[in-house]
Amino acid sequence: MTERVVLAYSGGLDTSVAIGWLGQETGAEVIAVAVDVGQGGEDMDEVRKRALACGAVESIVVDAKDEFADEYCLPAVRANALYQDRYPLVSALSRPLIVKHLVEAATYHGATTVSHGCTGKGNDQVRFEVGAKALAPELKVIAPVRDYAWTREKAIAYAEEHDLPIDVTKKSPYSIDQNVWGRAVETGFLEDIWNGPIEDLYSYTSDPAQQRDADEVVIAFEAGAPVAIDGKPVTMLQAIQQLNVRAGAQGVGRIDMVEDRLVGIKSREIYEAPGAMALIAAHMELENVTVERELARFKRGVDQRWGELAYDGLWFSPLKQSLDAFVMKSQEAVTGEVRMTLHAGKATVTGRRSATSLYDFNLATYDEGDTFDQSMAKGFIEIFGMSSTLANKRDQSLAGE
Amino acid sequence: MTERVVLAYSGGLDTSVAIGWLGQETGAEVIAVAVDVGQGGEDMDEVRKRALACGAVESIVVDAKDEFADEYCLPAVRANALYQDRYPLVSALSRPLIVKHLVEAATYHGATTVSHGCTGKGNDQVRFEVGAKALAPELKVIAPVRDYAWTREKAIAYAEEHDLPIDVTKKSPYSIDQNVWGRAVETGFLEDIWNGPIEDLYSYTSDPAQQRDADEVVIAFEAGAPVAIDGKPVTMLQAIQQLNVRAGAQGVGRIDMVEDRLVGIKSREIYEAPGAMALIAAHMELENVTVERELARFKRGVDQRWGELAYDGLWFSPLKQSLDAFVMKSQEAVTGEVRMTLHAGKATVTGRRSATSLYDFNLATYDEGDTFDQSMAKGFIEIFGMSSTLANKRDQSLAGE
Amino acid sequence: MTERVVLAYSGGLDTSVAIGWLGQETGAEVIAVAVDVGQGGEDMDEVRKRALACGAVESIVVDAKDEFADEYCLPAVRANALYQDRYPLVSALSRPLIVKHLVEAATYHGATTVSHGCTGKGNDQVRFEVGAKALAPELKVIAPVRDYAWTREKAIAYAEEHDLPIDVTKKSPYSIDQNVWGRAVETGFLEDIWNGPIEDLYSYTSDPAQQRDADEVVIAFEAGAPVAIDGKPVTMLQAIQQLNVRAGAQGVGRIDMVEDRLVGIKSREIYEAPGAMALIAAHMELENVTVERELARFKRGVDQRWGELAYDGLWFSPLKQSLDAFVMKSQEAVTGEVRMTLHAGKATVTGRRSATSLYDFNLATYDEGDTFDQSMAKGFIEIFGMSSTLANKRDQSLAGE
Amino acid sequence: MTERVVLAYSGGLDTSVAIGWLGQETGAEVIAVAVDVGQGGEDMDEVRKRALACGAVESIVVDAKDEFADEYCLPAVRANALYQDRYPLVSALSRPLIVKHLVEAATYHGATTVSHGCTGKGNDQVRFEVGAKALAPELKVIAPVRDYAWTREKAIAYAEEHDLPIDVTKKSPYSIDQNVWGRAVETGFLEDIWNGPIEDLYSYTSDPAQQRDADEVVIAFEAGAPVAIDGKPVTMLQAIQQLNVRAGAQGVGRIDMVEDRLVGIKSREIYEAPGAMALIAAHMELENVTVERELARFKRGVDQRWGELAYDGLWFSPLKQSLDAFVMKSQEAVTGEVRMTLHAGKATVTGRRSATSLYDFNLATYDEGDTFDQSMAKGFIEIFGMSSTLANKRDQSLAGE
Repeated sequence: MTERVVLAYSGGLDTSVAIGWLGQETGAEVIAVAVDVGQGGEDMDEVRKRALACGAVESIVVDAKDEFADEYCLPAVRANALYQDRYPLVSALSRPLIVKHLVEAATYHGATTVSHGCTGKGNDQVRFEVGAKALAPELKVIAPVRDYAWTREKAIAYAEEHDLPIDVTKKSPYSIDQNVWGRAVETGFLEDIWNGPIEDLYSYTSDPAQQRDADEVVIAFEAGAPVAIDGKPVTMLQAIQQLNVRAGAQGVGRIDMVEDRLVGIKSREIYEAPGAMALIAAHMELENVTVERELARFKRGVDQRWGELAYDGLWFSPLKQSLDAFVMKSQEAVTGEVRMTLHAGKATVTGRRSATSLYDFNLATYDEGDTFDQSMAKGFIEIFGMSSTLANKRDQSLAGE
Repeated sequence: MTERVVLAYSGGLDTSVAIGWLGQETGAEVIAVAVDVGQGGEDMDEVRKRALACGAVESIVVDAKDEFADEYCLPAVRANALYQDRYPLVSALSRPLIVKHLVEAATYHGATTVSHGCTGKGNDQVRFEVGAKALAPELKVIAPVRDYAWTREKAIAYAEEHDLPIDVTKKSPYSIDQNVWGRAVETGFLEDIWNGPIEDLYSYTSDPAQQRDADEVVIAFEAGAPVAIDGKPVTMLQAIQQLNVRAGAQGVGRIDMVEDRLVGIKSREIYEAPGAMALIAAHMELENVTVERELARFKRGVDQRWGELAYDGLWFSPLKQSLDAFVMKSQEAVTGEVRMTLHAGKATVTGRRSATSLYDFNLATYDEGDTFDQSMAKGFIEIFGMSSTLANKRDQSLAGE
Repeated sequence: MTERVVLAYSGGLDTSVAIGWLGQETGAEVIAVAVDVGQGGEDMDEVRKRALACGAVESIVVDAKDEFADEYCLPAVRANALYQDRYPLVSALSRPLIVKHLVEAATYHGATTVSHGCTGKGNDQVRFEVGAKALAPELKVIAPVRDYAWTREKAIAYAEEHDLPIDVTKKSPYSIDQNVWGRAVETGFLEDIWNGPIEDLYSYTSDPAQQRDADEVVIAFEAGAPVAIDGKPVTMLQAIQQLNVRAGAQGVGRIDMVEDRLVGIKSREIYEAPGAMALIAAHMELENVTVERELARFKRGVDQRWGELAYDGLWFSPLKQSLDAFVMKSQEAVTGEVRMTLHAGKATVTGRRSATSLYDFNLATYDEGDTFDQSMAKGFIEIFGMSSTLANKRDQSLAGE
Repeated sequence: MTERVVLAYSGGLDTSVAIGWLGQETGAEVIAVAVDVGQGGEDMDEVRKRALACGAVESIVVDAKDEFADEYCLPAVRANALYQDRYPLVSALSRPLIVKHLVEAATYHGATTVSHGCTGKGNDQVRFEVGAKALAPELKVIAPVRDYAWTREKAIAYAEEHDLPIDVTKKSPYSIDQNVWGRAVETGFLEDIWNGPIEDLYSYTSDPAQQRDADEVVIAFEAGAPVAIDGKPVTMLQAIQQLNVRAGAQGVGRIDMVEDRLVGIKSREIYEAPGAMALIAAHMELENVTVERELARFKRGVDQRWGELAYDGLWFSPLKQSLDAFVMKSQEAVTGEVRMTLHAGKATVTGRRSATSLYDFNLATYDEGDTFDQSMAKGFIEIFGMSSTLANKRDQSLAGE
């Protein structure tokens, strides 16, 4: 029986030529799997047909938009996942989902190998391969671009030679990855980190400097999950999509940063993630209202590690699973509404209300109705500061000697 | 010899009546100390004279603006100090400085007691008293508002009765604290956390929704400290002041949040800190460029704890000192320039350059000149993922039984 | 209707006189609750009767030994709970359990107040009162020894005056607290921290310096819980009890330390916890075999915080609950057997085996059968070290300038 | 000019044959560098001569015992460095020192390459190569055993063929690494992790089960460094050596564990480190006496990360340097004496005294002289527990709905 390779197929040049090339090099049949994570652009059926035209024995399109929103983006909201306090893990979140569908296709079709189009200096190769091994340790992996130093020039030549149905003339000066959670742009003139981004880079967001009216939105959460926008129930996917439109129209969610890649180098990245950034901002403030202080303080460290693991391709790792258990438990009371103003590139919280609020007007107010017993403070301060005070006293007596 | 009390004097109603009242209750002479941390407002000489008019035997004004900038705000920049990821510690930073000058005055004038005007349900009482004990454990503390349940009504009655030179009619509906690092506003209608803030609350920042031209600024840092703006050398104080003006004019640095007080309650706070927020944003991005990944990852936890300690009044504590040693060491190479656009409430980094940059174009580029050896990746991925892969394999074999 | 107070009753002098005294001071009826957490000593029925003889309107004994083992000691094993890396939380674990039964009794009997015999400078008062408020925020608390400066002398005088059935002549020179998880001894000559402990202090452990034959034990765990000893199924309580006997006979589990109390002071403590220390040592090594590296590394921080929360009286706090969720998830594969030698004060692991082991002989061996692909290492080292190497290179070029 | 390779030379089979083989394969001259880190065994001059006899053009012996003790072991004491809470980093500490001397020799002799005898599945290859790159990024590295799959059989054949002066017949069944800080033993029958260790494995420690008299020792520390033993001044090296003898004679410092290697696998390790374990135990208790609580709590996490970095070969990394700054600051008051009993495999602290002690008898005592103001406790408990109490109240009202 002929060996089979399942290829993560995007419809672009690299993975289109990989179909024929993989078959040629390995003698295997190639099955193309394209996963719809809301990347937009081409019709997915066009993508499916192109794979067949390029020689795939089977071409599969998976609509994973809801799954992506529910199982990957929602946990990221609950963990306020911002790598380096900034990056909402756009590509990092989609890779384990794509891997899952690759592995499912490999199992279903009896393939022994999976393949992806990543280079050897990025994070995605790690996410693909560590993810694939997590789900199916016995699968082999081929990454033509990396393992065979397959360049764009070679790819174009191959496509022309084999008359593949790809327009090799159009080339973006940037490398772009996008899905419903956001969009990542790199390379080109951005590789000079003193160069500022230009308006042309952006597609999910309008220019924040353009004058326009502000948009006010009320997002309702239950146990850390967005469940309604302006009073209308939404799925997680709808929440992201609606906020991509509304926050995007206001220029919200642009990010320009130098980032620490897992492979040890720093790279310059431009992101836009209007829905993601609005949801995380709202969620953080609702946590401020509903999560107890010590839990909130510790959770910051958990959130950071969660984001690092997702970034580093360790989505299916044991630590990630235990952190998830912590995060889920912490979210039980993160229920309520947050009102935000979307305007000029900012999503600003202006109000919050919650039946599970820990904000207690009667304790907080300085006006009538104050129930806080101020006489408690003296004892608190004395004992709270004691260990430090004793050390200061010791240090002074030493310094005085 | 008559006992002496050193009072932290603001010039306002509460501390003005405290002068006479402390004398009356304790029989002590009262020495007023007003510390200029850039709070603006009244002329400090007016403040000084008022204390004398209210009965102080001595009235001292300390110009501590540079000291505040250099010794309190600068370490906060180096630690990216944002309590709950938001609040740049406006009041929290000034309290240990004020305490230091109170204690110095107490030592100089032979006082046995220090006094402050804080209530019994806020953070500042803790910062004052734990700070005072750190520097002079033998000093007693009196907080009239808290310890004697001194209300505004009593204060007004006392002022009128004793004909003190204070205008008791003007009362802000808000409680305000401000210094060069920022401005804090609370109470009033804000105690309903669903109410949005109104334009009237703000004084350091213009309305970000107002149409205006963007402002571009280049901030140069050396070892984590801002040293020049647009090429002109600045002291730390000047850096803050200039950015307060420029970022403030663009509405940068407004914060509206529910905050976890040290005394266990949540409170609603409005801050504006245009210079602080611009400096921290620039500093964070320069760290992205110049600080190694694992140091940066660990430093996030250090920065968080640093901010908590400053917030919690533990400025002089042993842990704070050891964290400072860590932070200082981490800043050695945080040198370079950051270009920011200040506009519409946002300070956005658009460029960075540094002689100590760890960003390496030749490693990062996907174009010609790429020196990254992609053949290394396969071995890295295999071993990097191995411990997790082995665990996944184990878990699957268990699940399969 | 007469008010009621529920008193945590130990049978000793302080709480016996408290019965009458509380009634006298408050006019309330006193209900005594004695909780059996395996403290041994007196027959619990004697204790029950004494409370009645001292004036309690109701006297309840709760056998909570199994509950204590299952719900308090077992989570401590799973979290390897050692405060300051040493103290297995003997008293700290029992307090929330006692509180729970106090609150249940208060609810059942309609009491408005709970009372305990703790002083005002220890940790237990915090554990009692924060615990009580967690379960029943409306309950008041009275702590006669602290709140009324009730001294031993006063207590003896009261007991003699009221002819209470307590032998006031026997007084241990030490303050002792014990339960099935261990035993704590403090005060007396131990307050000079240069003084070594004497054999007379110990009751759960024999002198480790005595010559005797070693004892070998095999402990089986399932999901982090001990389930069998030497092949015979045990409950958690039996596991502790059997190991208290066997490890205690070998002098295992003595601890002598200076400890950081929650109230800010350092105190000198002697503990003995033979079963606890043997179980935790075995559990830690089984985790070494069955828990993935990154999970294990992060779990150390979780374990530390878990121990601090239990020590600090925050057993019922939200953070503790979320940490518990993390720990439970981490334990799923902590199943297997550990063989230990108990001898001369040490519990030494000598073997471990597990169906969920992550130790893979074929990867670890240097002999035949080695399946580790050493060619992967070069790429791993290159990329693993890259971010640090780039920083070192930068630092050298700076130093060289 | 002929290329030169500097080889880390141990005098054993692998590195002896590597001399000729490296010359043969690369055409380079080989310079042997043997670093004396207190490994004992053969006379170092014999080792030096053997390298020349095997074909080295230069053979250097460096006596680095004091340097190792002062610059590598002492920081480990200050950081209480125990990887996985157990392993005192015996080999991990020596590797960066050896690397440093290799690089110095390479620079001095104009070599372009360094070489070591490590395999491709251990930690030491990473420590050598990441360390070498840290100090001299331009140096190449050759690891014959790994890079050329050089087996013991090949080595013996080569040695016999070339008549090298090595006794190829004596082969330990174990792989052993030792230095003054301790001794590591692995492989052989220990690879079955259910097998217990046998007495024959040990060389630094006597059988703890042997009956003998206890030994009492008083160790004096200054700023975290041991400076005197039983009143006699010692260098760090002498402290380790003397305690190796005295604690070793009592069987102290044996460790048997399953360990998480950096390369992703678990391995079984036997260590003995009598001096190291005694020093760390004494140091930890002196910290208990002299370090403030919050500093001590945070330092546990710093210590853990420090140990991980040293284990992982990141000795020269930026994070390690910043952690060192934290640790050094934390040690300023860690001065005083600790008395220990060494007996039957245990080093037990029995007393401690310090002029910088934070233990305050008058605060701790329950007897006369008590200066702790217990009336402070009520206020402390109320406010300390408040955030948690409010959350519990909220959760109950939700559960009750």
